[in-house]
Amino acid sequence: MIKINKNFLELQDNYLFSNINKKVESYLEKNPNANIIKLGIGDVTRPIPSSIVEKMKKAAEEMQYEDSFRGYGPEQGYEFLRKKILESEYKDLDIDLDEIFISDGAKCDTVNIIELFDKDIKVGIPNPVYPVYLDSNIIYGTSGKYIVEKNEYENIIYINFTEENNFEPLPEELEQIPDLIYICSPNNPTGTVMKKDNLEKWVKFAKKNNSIILFDAAYEAFIKDEDIPHSIYEVSGAKEVAIEFKSFSKTAGFTGLRCAYTIVPKNIRIMNDGKEVSSNKLWNRRQSTKFNGVSYITQRAAESVYTEEGKKEIKDNITYYMENAKIIKNGLEEIGIKTFGGVNSPYIWMKTPNGIESWRFFDVLLEEYNIVGTPGVGFGTNGEGFFRLTAFGNKFKTIEAMERLISKKEIIFDLI
Amino acid sequence: MIKINKNFLELQDNYLFSNINKKVESYLEKNPNANIIKLGIGDVTRPIPSSIVEKMKKAAEEMQYEDSFRGYGPEQGYEFLRKKILESEYKDLDIDLDEIFISDGAKCDTVNIIELFDKDIKVGIPNPVYPVYLDSNIIYGTSGKYIVEKNEYENIIYINFTEENNFEPLPEELEQIPDLIYICSPNNPTGTVMKKDNLEKWVKFAKKNNSIILFDAAYEAFIKDEDIPHSIYEVSGAKEVAIEFKSFSKTAGFTGLRCAYTIVPKNIRIMNDGKEVSSNKLWNRRQSTKFNGVSYITQRAAESVYTEEGKKEIKDNITYYMENAKIIKNGLEEIGIKTFGGVNSPYIWMKTPNGIESWRFFDVLLEEYNIVGTPGVGFGTNGEGFFRLTAFGNKFKTIEAMERLISKKEIIFDLI
Repeated sequence: MIKINKNFLELQDNYLFSNINKKVESYLEKNPNANIIKLGIGDVTRPIPSSIVEKMKKAAEEMQYEDSFRGYGPEQGYEFLRKKILESEYKDLDIDLDEIFISDGAKCDTVNIIELFDKDIKVGIPNPVYPVYLDSNIIYGTSGKYIVEKNEYENIIYINFTEENNFEPLPEELEQIPDLIYICSPNNPTGTVMKKDNLEKWVKFAKKNNSIILFDAAYEAFIKDEDIPHSIYEVSGAKEVAIEFKSFSKTAGFTGLRCAYTIVPKNIRIMNDGKEVSSNKLWNRRQSTKFNGVSYITQRAAESVYTEEGKKEIKDNITYYMENAKIIKNGLEEIGIKTFGGVNSPYIWMKTPNGIESWRFFDVLLEEYNIVGTPGVGFGTNGEGFFRLTAFGNKFKTIEAMERLISKKEIIFDLI
Repeated sequence: MIKINKNFLELQDNYLFSNINKKVESYLEKNPNANIIKLGIGDVTRPIPSSIVEKMKKAAEEMQYEDSFRGYGPEQGYEFLRKKILESEYKDLDIDLDEIFISDGAKCDTVNIIELFDKDIKVGIPNPVYPVYLDSNIIYGTSGKYIVEKNEYENIIYINFTEENNFEPLPEELEQIPDLIYICSPNNPTGTVMKKDNLEKWVKFAKKNNSIILFDAAYEAFIKDEDIPHSIYEVSGAKEVAIEFKSFSKTAGFTGLRCAYTIVPKNIRIMNDGKEVSSNKLWNRRQSTKFNGVSYITQRAAESVYTEEGKKEIKDNITYYMENAKIIKNGLEEIGIKTFGGVNSPYIWMKTPNGIESWRFFDVLLEEYNIVGTPGVGFGTNGEGFFRLTAFGNKFKTIEAMERLISKKEIIFDLI
């Protein structure tokens, strides 16, 4: 008799975005003329630069002729793309070509990587957090059971991102030692970043405890401040403890094209009863067995991100988004709302006025200002009392949203 | 301390294709002018039809403008493509739109689907077989340990494909009842197909035993005979027991573009301590959590496979390959070699002359005829004494390969 993977039954239904959509639809039914501005989305809106589109059309055309047609590509990705990434992103960081693996998304990689590890390890996951880190650990079985009264999983070590630690927790704050540690910088949802000296502490901590860091740098292209690492390998010793995830999704607008890459250093050793196994070899075997590579056309598009023209066009898009971030951050601060992030990240994490519940703030923002954002509690218990706005919208609409808030700011502060 | 997923250590290194490549390279070093014909590959070689390439170029261009740009698509695939598949492939088969899931490859889906099930189930896997069915079960833990003396895994129920059962095994031949059953028809590597009445027996067997069939129909477009099912849902009751995998890879030459789809019927229930859970709901949750959809450009390409022009161009490619299959099959039979498959499949499974070992036959074929194929034993113990040739090569080279064999046929039959 076929039986279920019981771990699935431990998943809590995540209604965050469906609840948001339902509330917006219901409001629009009653107010069909409302001019709603959406600042809740985590998807890009700027189109793909023309130089990249030209390369995709050329790659599509190559598929039409017998001589230039491409069938199965390497599961690890084409060398032309891996070389470009090596030269452009890891020039002085001592990374080898066979440590770079191309994939169809950082989401897939951050969830699939867990398969390399035993179910009996302790996993450290931020709170609040991008929900798939936790959900994939639940499905895999590392989370253990859900404890209703705590709204926590029994085996997860929660890494608390709070106002007190300025959303940049340190390893010494942990009560237990995780074997696997998720770090996302620039962070989703808090928009905060990990400074180099703090990252050094995490690398040392991991090394001391034989732990592995999963470093999600999907938003690194938005970093502006010079002292913030774009890669964890800027930190000495990281090659022995950290796997890094990067993506073309937010950097180059590839959310609809699907391309990311993961660095799995050969120096990282995973223990097996006293013997050591190379994580690089394991990941290579996992990908060869369970994955079949990324579309050739998408890989050519990713390659052209690194041309002079591509780089310029992409920088323009990032500048566009970061202007939005500034508009939002300044607008909120002008009326006295405390914000985090938004400087090296497209996410602005704001404190709700008078500390009201984040879903209540959502309702007020929707009903009084026709603005949609994301309640912080949807990302974890520590998100209660906070709210996420994103810089991925249209500039004029973003300006208008802030004008609406400023012109009727008293409504917000009358909330208790 | 981080620990390994020990299941990885049970994987046997699979050197099949790397051994083939090494032997060919070594031969070419000694015989640099040899004109080698490769009939071993499982990848397509015909280019993508021009009508499909045009659609890809158009889709790429859409990404260039704000109004037509597409970011994240639905994890389940765009409705425009799922509707086309429903109309074209499942017209009278009572499949619902939300039972169709688009993915980046049948390989990924056939390996990821295991996650829905408990590790404690018994899995039935063909011998010989497409290696990833077995390898993914090893990584997941359903296989149990490798038993060296048997060259088998302790918990796998092997479904024997032999000359005696005409490479079409029946459920009554099994000594144990599997909870999960892999069926691949047209089969890789044997090229044989499952007739409707046999498939009915498997569906009844699965229903009686509360088992689930994973039906891999990646090669269904090559079926010529009218009485062979293209979908398992042509069999009554299959919607309650079978998950079906189809792909654009071999059908439309998409191995480099990455697009497949899987049907997970809502009627399939998976047991959990007496309660039933919908497999469709589980797979939807799995895909939403761990996958981020297929490239928009690829999905538009797949949609255009179903235009009148697309259908015609694709049919021409399949006809081309199936002429190759006929040339190989007729050529081999002309010199007295017994063959299987090659009628409803691009694979020809041949008996080695005088039953010699399949690697020895590989060497003779390479050295005496400069032809490369795949030794049957590389697909499992039952493949010993057999050899796989494929119809995916160039037509003129395929003809020449057969001429070489026919003109020096005595060499083959002198082998003992």
